[in-house]
Amino acid sequence: MSDDTRDDAWLRTEMGVSTESAITVVGRDVASELMGRVSLSELAFRFVAGRFPTDAEATLFDAVLVSLADHGITPSVLAARLTYVGAPEALQGAVAAGLLGGGSVFLGVAEDAARFLQQTIAEVDDPDDEAALRAMASDRLAQLRSEGRRTPGLGHPVHKHTDPRVPRAYELATELDLLGPHLRLLEIVAVVHEEQTGLRLPINGAGVAGAALADLGFDWSIIRGFTLLARTAGILGHLAEEMQQSMGMPLWHEIEARSTRASQRSDS
Amino acid sequence: MSDDTRDDAWLRTEMGVSTESAITVVGRDVASELMGRVSLSELAFRFVAGRFPTDAEATLFDAVLVSLADHGITPSVLAARLTYVGAPEALQGAVAAGLLGGGSVFLGVAEDAARFLQQTIAEVDDPDDEAALRAMASDRLAQLRSEGRRTPGLGHPVHKHTDPRVPRAYELATELDLLGPHLRLLEIVAVVHEEQTGLRLPINGAGVAGAALADLGFDWSIIRGFTLLARTAGILGHLAEEMQQSMGMPLWHEIEARSTRASQRSDS
Amino acid sequence: MSDDTRDDAWLRTEMGVSTESAITVVGRDVASELMGRVSLSELAFRFVAGRFPTDAEATLFDAVLVSLADHGITPSVLAARLTYVGAPEALQGAVAAGLLGGGSVFLGVAEDAARFLQQTIAEVDDPDDEAALRAMASDRLAQLRSEGRRTPGLGHPVHKHTDPRVPRAYELATELDLLGPHLRLLEIVAVVHEEQTGLRLPINGAGVAGAALADLGFDWSIIRGFTLLARTAGILGHLAEEMQQSMGMPLWHEIEARSTRASQRSDS
Amino acid sequence: MSDDTRDDAWLRTEMGVSTESAITVVGRDVASELMGRVSLSELAFRFVAGRFPTDAEATLFDAVLVSLADHGITPSVLAARLTYVGAPEALQGAVAAGLLGGGSVFLGVAEDAARFLQQTIAEVDDPDDEAALRAMASDRLAQLRSEGRRTPGLGHPVHKHTDPRVPRAYELATELDLLGPHLRLLEIVAVVHEEQTGLRLPINGAGVAGAALADLGFDWSIIRGFTLLARTAGILGHLAEEMQQSMGMPLWHEIEARSTRASQRSDS
Repeated sequence: MSDDTRDDAWLRTEMGVSTESAITVVGRDVASELMGRVSLSELAFRFVAGRFPTDAEATLFDAVLVSLADHGITPSVLAARLTYVGAPEALQGAVAAGLLGGGSVFLGVAEDAARFLQQTIAEVDDPDDEAALRAMASDRLAQLRSEGRRTPGLGHPVHKHTDPRVPRAYELATELDLLGPHLRLLEIVAVVHEEQTGLRLPINGAGVAGAALADLGFDWSIIRGFTLLARTAGILGHLAEEMQQSMGMPLWHEIEARSTRASQRSDS
Repeated sequence: MSDDTRDDAWLRTEMGVSTESAITVVGRDVASELMGRVSLSELAFRFVAGRFPTDAEATLFDAVLVSLADHGITPSVLAARLTYVGAPEALQGAVAAGLLGGGSVFLGVAEDAARFLQQTIAEVDDPDDEAALRAMASDRLAQLRSEGRRTPGLGHPVHKHTDPRVPRAYELATELDLLGPHLRLLEIVAVVHEEQTGLRLPINGAGVAGAALADLGFDWSIIRGFTLLARTAGILGHLAEEMQQSMGMPLWHEIEARSTRASQRSDS
Repeated sequence: MSDDTRDDAWLRTEMGVSTESAITVVGRDVASELMGRVSLSELAFRFVAGRFPTDAEATLFDAVLVSLADHGITPSVLAARLTYVGAPEALQGAVAAGLLGGGSVFLGVAEDAARFLQQTIAEVDDPDDEAALRAMASDRLAQLRSEGRRTPGLGHPVHKHTDPRVPRAYELATELDLLGPHLRLLEIVAVVHEEQTGLRLPINGAGVAGAALADLGFDWSIIRGFTLLARTAGILGHLAEEMQQSMGMPLWHEIEARSTRASQRSDS
Repeated sequence: MSDDTRDDAWLRTEMGVSTESAITVVGRDVASELMGRVSLSELAFRFVAGRFPTDAEATLFDAVLVSLADHGITPSVLAARLTYVGAPEALQGAVAAGLLGGGSVFLGVAEDAARFLQQTIAEVDDPDDEAALRAMASDRLAQLRSEGRRTPGLGHPVHKHTDPRVPRAYELATELDLLGPHLRLLEIVAVVHEEQTGLRLPINGAGVAGAALADLGFDWSIIRGFTLLARTAGILGHLAEEMQQSMGMPLWHEIEARSTRASQRSDS
């Protein structure tokens, strides 16, 4: 282990490093430069972006995280609560179980929208050229439809007319002077979709979150991570509630009893 | 399912509820009352505490979360990076793997300190009576030692003299007028420990985090959850770094090769 | 990495080692000595015990694993199915979520029974001395009751008279000549419990599993692991069923709708 | 909950159902019909296939599971061991962390091979028509190469000439009279690949496992599940070893120290 010539370049990290007297995180002294000076959200932004957000960016970033934090009784929340029922001594397991449902069906939407928008923008010469964006969006939507695929970021099973998070996100981005090409393109996509199909689908909350995070500079490949961070806060709230009054235990008892009856009925 | 008389009281949640036109979280309209108005940390505080923090509380809460967010190359971070190597398409799995090491050995420290402090305070009539706190602390520390157990919140393998997060947390709590009985008792505990053993052990960062969260009103049983939330941000930063330059893959290759050599040596 | 003098003894493993032409697992050539010659259960036994089971031991071991593999619609199974709903592309996440509920409440029972039996036996000079076992069991049960704790391995919420797995396990162990001190002690414990309390509690399936695994030579500390292995098979069956006809999706829709109604009622 | 007319058909399960006096699993009485009569592997086969295997099928199935159970110090095993370091009281978390790396990079190989073979066979009229299989394989391999994709089931970073599990699997399948169209097609694929590219790539162990499981009647979509089951046994063995002598703790200490040095070097 005293091999001083060994090149451990692959072990370098920009994240935390500790010595006996100091703890450095992202190159800053955690005690004097971070604690009391930045929020957890600002630090998370810094971890991924490699720079701290401006105040306006921090506000929009927090607004996006807040919009993603909790959607009530989702499959993930039920999984977390049911896991807590069996292993209350291992809270980390219940949180982890809640995150593991964060895959393609739900959490993938923000990622898919950001990817679609980033790839579309990458194909135009000037992302501020609205006509070029519209033409490229038109081509790509036509192709999606020819493949039988849905347009990322549009449509919602519950909020059929307007997802209330969407106008609020645009309002905030405008106020904060952070309305960038991805948010603009997402509006164009909604218009083009209606033109091509005759069907008006509202932009959904995950789509606007993905677009806003893309405008904040994040690559689509890490966007699911921010959704997971926001959801961790929501899962924590559900587990705190579960500790006070269990939903998981009576849920299990009811469903097991009904399943037993239904299964016995099918046997006869 | 149309059983209107069924009492589903156990299914009530204070967390999120959606209708076609609105999304309510903790009783607030998420678009107009939360997005752009509260940070993710403030919302997480609200989820668990049932009330929003004051500005001072939010600052101390964020400072604690920031102090817990990343400790560099921990076992948890290595587990997350190694998991990403095998399943890069399922980021939620890598984050979950990183959280699952958050058990008794590392993340339990803040929880243990908070529990010890809360139970000690619960046994005195007046938590502002410093003499009573000191007497009770003395009794409980003597008992811990008689059982061969360590004092929660004291000592650190690396920061042998001072954990730099500790004086900063006390400074902030004082400035923000939030220095409460748990933080005060933790200082008393350190003094009493030195009196009883002749050995000076510094308060550690997890201990001061647990004490500060207890002073913010949180029960010890949920404190691990906040550590998990903070760590999620840190894990995300490591995974973003892993996407750019893998540490997990060369780590695996080196360790497997060395393990193979060591194992073959032991066979001969 | 060319540090030949480095002592990597801590990297030695008895598990698998690969070279270009051979794969060795537990010191055996996997192709010629394991594939087609041992079952997965026998290999799992070998992994933990350090020796292969006899045929009789393999039969009892499999019987225990089979008894633990599936208990129908448990909280763990629901968590696995609900996780699959959100992330069908990451089957490993659904299996992991199903395992994470395997904590103290359900899976701890076999472990607790084995620990209680092993610790009781460790305190008698001769584990074949039934009178000594009975006296020690009597002391330890009295102590458990004085602490308000339940007797590990006794009682079941559904199988109030007889858990059908129990007589079958004793029958098999007897036939296979593997009825050892832990299984015998568990019967004594049930008798002593009735003598002390006047209440007859049946031995439960988890208790007999723990006792049988202890008689097979396993320490209580690894017994939860075998339950997890058996449960993995059960979870896999449920997920295969979920792929054919979803239980998780309609479960979520029903529960979310009922929770929304219940939560709105409580607000008014 | 007493709504007798409610159609809970979606809650029916073929898996376990309990009443006060009996436990039924896959329609069999677990005590009298399963314990002592079937192995865990046979039960797992039944869970997924809907039928019990013949003796020959059980032997091949176990051989495949045994070939997949442990590959030594993999990223997954390291993740499991490192997770155990932090949360030894929650063994389920360490097992889960070990499974979560079972994604596209490693465990996807068996699945990908099975899918490729099943889809190729689905496109020929008669799976026993070797000439038709060869023609179809030739078309599909050419297409894969035109897309820059690798051939599923061929090539191995360590076993460059022969993966020793492969000839053994073919030998066993032949002996047991279970050499079916998927295993035969996989050999054809290896031949066609060499014809098209001039490069001889050996069939790998994951590929032959996927082909054998496909010949046993399993759809590619569940095959990752069997790999996870087999790996659970291997992870359990590593964790039992970790309990005796920790690899995770010294690994962490060494890597953290080297990372700290490397990171400080890069700062200067």
